[in-house]
Amino acid sequence: MSHIVDRRNLDFLLFDMFDVEADRPGQTYAGYDRQLITQLLDTAQKLAEAEYLPSSASLDASPPIFANGEAVMPPSVRAALAAYRDAGLPAQSFPVELGGSGLPYLIAMLVNGMFIAANISIANYSLLTAAAARLLLAFGTEEQRTRFALPMIAGQWMGTMCLSEPQAGSSLADITTRAEPAGEGTFRLRGTKIWISGGGHGMTENIVHLVLARLPGAPAGVKGISLFLVPQKRLDAEGRPGEDNNVTLIGLAHKMGQRGTTNCQLNFGEAGPTLGYLIGEPHQGLRAMFHMMNEARIGVGHVATMSGLTGYRYSRRYAQERVQGRRIGHKDPTTPQVPLIEHADIRRMLLAQKAAVEGALALCVFCALLVDEQGAASGEELKEVRLLLEVLTPIVKSWPSEHCLKANELAMQIMGGAGYTCDHPVERYYRDNRLNHIYEGTYGIQAIDLLGRKVRMDDGHGLDLLLARIRATIGDASQMPDLATHAAALEEALSWLEAATAAVMGEGDQERGLANATLYLDAMGTIVIAWLWLWQALVARRCQAPDTTQPDPFLQGKRAACDYHFRYILPHARIHLSLVEGLDDTCLAVSADQIEAG
Amino acid sequence: MSHIVDRRNLDFLLFDMFDVEADRPGQTYAGYDRQLITQLLDTAQKLAEAEYLPSSASLDASPPIFANGEAVMPPSVRAALAAYRDAGLPAQSFPVELGGSGLPYLIAMLVNGMFIAANISIANYSLLTAAAARLLLAFGTEEQRTRFALPMIAGQWMGTMCLSEPQAGSSLADITTRAEPAGEGTFRLRGTKIWISGGGHGMTENIVHLVLARLPGAPAGVKGISLFLVPQKRLDAEGRPGEDNNVTLIGLAHKMGQRGTTNCQLNFGEAGPTLGYLIGEPHQGLRAMFHMMNEARIGVGHVATMSGLTGYRYSRRYAQERVQGRRIGHKDPTTPQVPLIEHADIRRMLLAQKAAVEGALALCVFCALLVDEQGAASGEELKEVRLLLEVLTPIVKSWPSEHCLKANELAMQIMGGAGYTCDHPVERYYRDNRLNHIYEGTYGIQAIDLLGRKVRMDDGHGLDLLLARIRATIGDASQMPDLATHAAALEEALSWLEAATAAVMGEGDQERGLANATLYLDAMGTIVIAWLWLWQALVARRCQAPDTTQPDPFLQGKRAACDYHFRYILPHARIHLSLVEGLDDTCLAVSADQIEAG
Repeated sequence: MSHIVDRRNLDFLLFDMFDVEADRPGQTYAGYDRQLITQLLDTAQKLAEAEYLPSSASLDASPPIFANGEAVMPPSVRAALAAYRDAGLPAQSFPVELGGSGLPYLIAMLVNGMFIAANISIANYSLLTAAAARLLLAFGTEEQRTRFALPMIAGQWMGTMCLSEPQAGSSLADITTRAEPAGEGTFRLRGTKIWISGGGHGMTENIVHLVLARLPGAPAGVKGISLFLVPQKRLDAEGRPGEDNNVTLIGLAHKMGQRGTTNCQLNFGEAGPTLGYLIGEPHQGLRAMFHMMNEARIGVGHVATMSGLTGYRYSRRYAQERVQGRRIGHKDPTTPQVPLIEHADIRRMLLAQKAAVEGALALCVFCALLVDEQGAASGEELKEVRLLLEVLTPIVKSWPSEHCLKANELAMQIMGGAGYTCDHPVERYYRDNRLNHIYEGTYGIQAIDLLGRKVRMDDGHGLDLLLARIRATIGDASQMPDLATHAAALEEALSWLEAATAAVMGEGDQERGLANATLYLDAMGTIVIAWLWLWQALVARRCQAPDTTQPDPFLQGKRAACDYHFRYILPHARIHLSLVEGLDDTCLAVSADQIEAG
Repeated sequence: MSHIVDRRNLDFLLFDMFDVEADRPGQTYAGYDRQLITQLLDTAQKLAEAEYLPSSASLDASPPIFANGEAVMPPSVRAALAAYRDAGLPAQSFPVELGGSGLPYLIAMLVNGMFIAANISIANYSLLTAAAARLLLAFGTEEQRTRFALPMIAGQWMGTMCLSEPQAGSSLADITTRAEPAGEGTFRLRGTKIWISGGGHGMTENIVHLVLARLPGAPAGVKGISLFLVPQKRLDAEGRPGEDNNVTLIGLAHKMGQRGTTNCQLNFGEAGPTLGYLIGEPHQGLRAMFHMMNEARIGVGHVATMSGLTGYRYSRRYAQERVQGRRIGHKDPTTPQVPLIEHADIRRMLLAQKAAVEGALALCVFCALLVDEQGAASGEELKEVRLLLEVLTPIVKSWPSEHCLKANELAMQIMGGAGYTCDHPVERYYRDNRLNHIYEGTYGIQAIDLLGRKVRMDDGHGLDLLLARIRATIGDASQMPDLATHAAALEEALSWLEAATAAVMGEGDQERGLANATLYLDAMGTIVIAWLWLWQALVARRCQAPDTTQPDPFLQGKRAACDYHFRYILPHARIHLSLVEGLDDTCLAVSADQIEAG
């Protein structure tokens, strides 16, 4: 049993629940039948298990170190990335005409999921490079695409995103890195960037940094931010990396998790001139960056889900194999001890993990499908897919980061003392996962994005679209006697959500309306996951052979996890939403000096 | 501002809320007036800040290593413990006639709290030694007390507790370490123990291990476990450590937190004979160990609370000093950025930490008071204090381990990227704290102890006593117009608790009754903390000078945290308790193969 992937569940999601083999608008998945997808997943799994998994513990214990102005990389990182590159995987999701395989976003995400689960610290390098290349393709000039994006797609170069600065972490409005015209279409950049993942190393002959900076005379705030392409090494006439471009590694942050991925403080233009090229229009940098960031947010949610998955599967195997104690009421010490999984509280912690992880994965897959549909749709349909994605993006980023972290906590708890030692990977998964709640915008920032922007967009049409989808599932489920209770519970939950949304929309004081935005985000996530569980239960019901004398335990497990989410998790959303609806000001009203006293 | 202690809050708890200066049965605190206590706390704070705090990060980064059969200790550990010893602190809570200072349990706990907050990895050594010495005093012979306990009390030797074995972690019934009579009152021990904190080092000339083992022909299970005193070095005729006793360090577990405390696998009797002495009666070892463990469980809850406190205070200071972004509705980028604490969501995360940490600390203090009262009481009163402590012990161990860990998570979240780097201690607090949920019995084990034993004891009299105390506070609060709503909410919560308890007591199938025991424990903890918050709000109200034009922000902050707990946390207990009351069998009924499928 692999603990980096649940192939049965992927099949269930792809072919039973979302039915990617069906005809779809634009034929997104045309040519990707079950056989081909299976083959792609097989290959990826083998490679991830052989090349990424073995070094995951040692890389965590001996991460890159800063020496002589460079990040010294453990050889395992280089070797794994080489194997990934040799398999052609950096190009998998790029168009065939650019040397790629043209894999749909969804399939590429699931392929990458195995590398993420096997060794997130290494997977990050290629994930970030692909995101940077995609941004260049969307907003760069033909020359930028050819000279810079192609080598990234080929896995020869890597890429980074440079947003935060020491005085501007979450507040991009306040970045101060400057870009002055230096002739011939180039700009001279000066400034310092922090939390830059994937830079600072010499593993590839070049690194392409995408850097937010201000042009001279740019408006203050986010309306004056432009995006620049800044290579680590300038290209010579033949397009080969040559002269150093003075992007200096000042230091590496030492992190609690994902320790094998460099996290750099980079200086631009201090050691000598740093030249860059404008990407897109002046002052339009944030728009381009957010184009990338929406996909990156799905990506972070998916990484969080994979961390949860590995912990779930590892602790599940441990609970099957490790004998400890006896069932309640069977205390005779002369009888053998039973496997941990025989204890109800251990099963509770496994079911809680399953509900969180498989619920979150269904959400990631649904969002990835929307990304693919977006690529194929047009007109009104495109607008709807986009709106739906806008609403779901803060949720898919955040809900897994919170609830799959909790799953990792439970994986450790199941294992007792063994759970907190480095002899087992679950404590590492927990540490790795803790970062996802901060990457690409914290819970609080996602929450303001959701309640302050996304549910207001287009007169709330995005939320309406989501509710319509949820109600369609409720309609189906309410026809099934054994699911009608859950269907009714979900309909009731929607009424809490609608009441809370209306209360905030009706509140003139924006700060008060948004004071409990994080609770709204969490509750809405819980409701969306409940919807996906109800849907999974419906599918499991349909898949069950009519000969119920041989029920399929996998499908029964789906139903049990659905029950768990509806009974143990969903009711909590009501408490959150009633605080939102009541515009509770406990946290808004407490003054700083009241918190600071003592 | 110190981040290892909140002296204003300690004063509030000691002198305003629990009024330790008042006359009490048995005069527990006679002689400990405010001036003396303040002086003791001052001295401890200075020492903890000077000797324990500075090495906390470096010890985490470079923990003890296993070499040549021994744990090689970083010098900082030795130096800090020497300073603690030179200040006479190992003896602080022991009777004057044994060379101690006779400090009440409560005061010693608060003194130790500062060392715990400053550097838990070092504090563990003396905490464990004191617990072992106390056990020897309670159950050992006069000779054992004199020869072994006295040097521990003097801080010359250290002590460990050896319970778990590779095949028996939480299931003590299954331990197999044997002890064979070897003449002259000695026993030869053979076996392997794991998760032994504080052993394996050469920092003191001897280490006294308290070891659970079986005598020949002992009954199976917990009724056949005896307790042995096993020195690392045997004593010569003068009582000096001499010949090696063949307690071999096989290896150190590498942990995610509390990394400076050795966590040993120890072998007894493999390298040569290991001699030990029986403590107390044959087959009564578990009783003695649990005598110690009840206090150890309060101790673990207190350690978890201290981890929460340090994260809260550190992140609070960061939120005051770090400017980032602007308040909602004030987005003009030409205005200066505001401190993080100006954002409502940051205040929410601070208030949540405050409510958890100060609520948990009030519970620790209340339990410590009961320990002291227990030492002074007799007859019916003693019985009542004991019963109350029995019921509260699983709660004081568990609630802080869950909710102050969540507080540590929020401390990181407030700090964004800075929170997950080793440049700040909050990620370390989070890692340190994660172990407390497993130490001295997991959540699940505490839950079965509470719902399966403690609330049933003496026909539920312990629970009745607790409810009576809570209702007395409700009675007081309901007289105050501004607290009546909370008082009514708490009364309602008690009705959920009573209904859930009754349902479980009425259920014949014990396994089903206990299937949701962990939810019961969590909810009961939340209700107990609500009681302590209502009580704190009452005290704050009383302390507030009648001239309300100058309200005291500290007292207002108490009220705000009380409001937070009642509005944001307490309602969730209802969901937990309704699952308990309904004897929900979602987790019990799911079969292992349904979870295992996929």
